[in-house]
Amino acid sequence: MKAIVQTDLDNPRSLELQDVSTPSLAPGEVLIKVAAAGVNRADLLQARGAYPPPPGASEIMGLEVAGVIEDAGDTGRQPGEKVGALLSGGGYAEYVAVPEGQLLPLPEGYSMEETAAVIEVACTVWSNLVMEAGLNKGQRILIHGGAGGIGTFAIQVAKSLGAEVAVTAGSAEKLETCRKYGADILINYKEQDFAEELKDSCDVILDIIGAKYLKGNLKALAKDGHMVTIGMQGGRKEELNIGVVVSKRLKLQGTTLRTRDKDAKAEIVAETVKHVWPLLASGDITHHLHATYPLAEAAQAHEALDSGEVTGTLVLTTA
Amino acid sequence: MKAIVQTDLDNPRSLELQDVSTPSLAPGEVLIKVAAAGVNRADLLQARGAYPPPPGASEIMGLEVAGVIEDAGDTGRQPGEKVGALLSGGGYAEYVAVPEGQLLPLPEGYSMEETAAVIEVACTVWSNLVMEAGLNKGQRILIHGGAGGIGTFAIQVAKSLGAEVAVTAGSAEKLETCRKYGADILINYKEQDFAEELKDSCDVILDIIGAKYLKGNLKALAKDGHMVTIGMQGGRKEELNIGVVVSKRLKLQGTTLRTRDKDAKAEIVAETVKHVWPLLASGDITHHLHATYPLAEAAQAHEALDSGEVTGTLVLTTA
Repeated sequence: MKAIVQTDLDNPRSLELQDVSTPSLAPGEVLIKVAAAGVNRADLLQARGAYPPPPGASEIMGLEVAGVIEDAGDTGRQPGEKVGALLSGGGYAEYVAVPEGQLLPLPEGYSMEETAAVIEVACTVWSNLVMEAGLNKGQRILIHGGAGGIGTFAIQVAKSLGAEVAVTAGSAEKLETCRKYGADILINYKEQDFAEELKDSCDVILDIIGAKYLKGNLKALAKDGHMVTIGMQGGRKEELNIGVVVSKRLKLQGTTLRTRDKDAKAEIVAETVKHVWPLLASGDITHHLHATYPLAEAAQAHEALDSGEVTGTLVLTTA
Repeated sequence: MKAIVQTDLDNPRSLELQDVSTPSLAPGEVLIKVAAAGVNRADLLQARGAYPPPPGASEIMGLEVAGVIEDAGDTGRQPGEKVGALLSGGGYAEYVAVPEGQLLPLPEGYSMEETAAVIEVACTVWSNLVMEAGLNKGQRILIHGGAGGIGTFAIQVAKSLGAEVAVTAGSAEKLETCRKYGADILINYKEQDFAEELKDSCDVILDIIGAKYLKGNLKALAKDGHMVTIGMQGGRKEELNIGVVVSKRLKLQGTTLRTRDKDAKAEIVAETVKHVWPLLASGDITHHLHATYPLAEAAQAHEALDSGEVTGTLVLTTA
C-alpha cells in the first residue's frame, strides 16, 4: 500500500508517499481502507521527533481516520461497513489496522472527511471534561485557548452539559469566535489577568498551557476544583504551592489520549459515541473542517497547521 | 459547661478548663455529653495559630468525640444513645453540638475512649485511600510515615482491600511496626532512595510530606497513578514537572477532612462505618489508644503528642 513516510528524521517536512507493507491483523482487529485522515498537532510533534509513537503502535503518523472495513478479521463485523476510528498511529496510509473497540459509526449526516476531522477532538474533550473532571450542570469551567479546535469543541460540550464557560484567548476576534460557540465569560489574556478575574471560582480547568499558567490556574480554581492538563504550550516546569492544593482540596491531573491502552480507548470511544454523536447529528455541536489535502500533500498540510492560520481540522484524503 | 480555652494565643500550652456557654442546637443537630475526645495534630496546629477553625465551626479544639446524646433536637434520635462523632471542632468540652450525619455508632466491643481515638484516623484513611484514590485489589500503595497513627491504619485498610503496601519510615524499629501491621515493602528513608526503589510502580501514594518528596513521588508513581497529599511536614513549595504529570497521566490531589461541608462529612462517615467498622469489630484492623488524660490536662496531652514519642492516639476524658 501507499503511506506517508518521513524520509529524513531531521526534517519534519520530508513526508513522502511511498510503498510500504499493508498492516497485518492481530486478533480483534479490522483493516480499514482509509478515505480520510485527520491531521493533529501530535502529528506535527511526531515529525519533529518530539512525540514518539507509544510501544506497539504504527510508526506512521495519523491518529484518526474514516473509511470502509476491508477485512473484518475475527471480529464478526461486515466488510464494506463505513466506519471512523480512533488510532494510536497509522492513519496517513491507504490501509490501517485497528482494534474493533476503537471503531465508531459516522455521525448522522457526516461525510468521511467530516468524520475524520472530529474523532480525536471529540474523544479528547469528552474524556477529559466528563470522564476525568466530572463536569456538571451549574459548574464553571475555564477553557484556555478557547478559539482553537479543542477549545471551541470544549465550549460546546460544556454548554450542552449546562456548565458556565469562561475562556481565554489572545484577540477580540478569537473571543468573538468563543462567544459564538457559547462561551459566557471572555478573557483577553493580553489585557486581563484571568486568575484575578476568576479567583476561586472555577470548578474545572481544561489546560493546554502548563507551566506558564500554573500559579494562575491554582488561584482561579474553586474549592474541590479539578484541572486537567492536556498540553504544555507554556512550558513544563514551575513551582507548585502544595499548601494551596491541600487547603483548596484540588486535583491536578495530566492526561494524553494516545498512550492509553486499547481497553481505555474503547471505553472513551463508546462514551463519546453515546453522548457526543447525537449532538453532532442534531447540529448542537459543530466542528470546522478547515480544508482537505490529497494524502501525498501531507507536508503541505503540516505546513498549514504549523502556520497558526488554521481554525479547524485539516484532513488528508486518499480518493 | 466546662471546656478547654486557650487563654494566650501566643502560647500554645495555655489550655485551661473554663466555664463557657453550652452550645445551642441548629436544625438537624444533636447535643452530645462528651465522655472522651481524641487529640489530633490539627489541634496542636490550631493552638499554634496555624490552623484556624473553618467558618462557622466552634473555636474550641477537638475533632472527634464519643459520648451520650443529651438532647436530640429535631433529629428523632434518642437521648441516652451512645455515639461517636466526627467534628469540625468543639470536642475539648463537656458538651458538643454536631449534625446528625456526623454521628457514628461505637464499633462493637469498643469503649468510649477507644471510639474517640479511632474516628478521625478511620475517616481520613478511608476517604483518601478509597473514596478519593480508588485503591483496589492488586494495586501498589506507598504510605509515607508508615509507623504513625495514620500510617499504621492505612497499612491495615490497604491490606484489607488486597493491595500491596510499601512504606517509608526512619528507623528499623518503626519499619518493624509497619511490617507487623502488614506492610510488604519496607524502606528506611535515611538509608534508601524510595523513588529509585519504587520507580514507576505505585498506583497510589498517601503523602504527608509535601514539597520535600514531590519529585520522588512523581518518579515512584506508575502510569495513571494517584497521589493524595494530606500533610506537608516537608514543606509547601517545590518545582513541579508537568511533563511527567502529563506523560504518566497522573493525578495529584490535596485534601483536608475538617474543612469539608457537612454533606461531605456525612458521606465519609457513612462509608467509613459501612466498610471500616466491621473490620474494627472483628479485630482485623486495630488502632492503638496510647494514653488518656483528664480533660483539664489537655496541655499535658499536647506536650506529649508534640514530643514525637506517641505511637497511637491520645484521648481526653471528662469522667
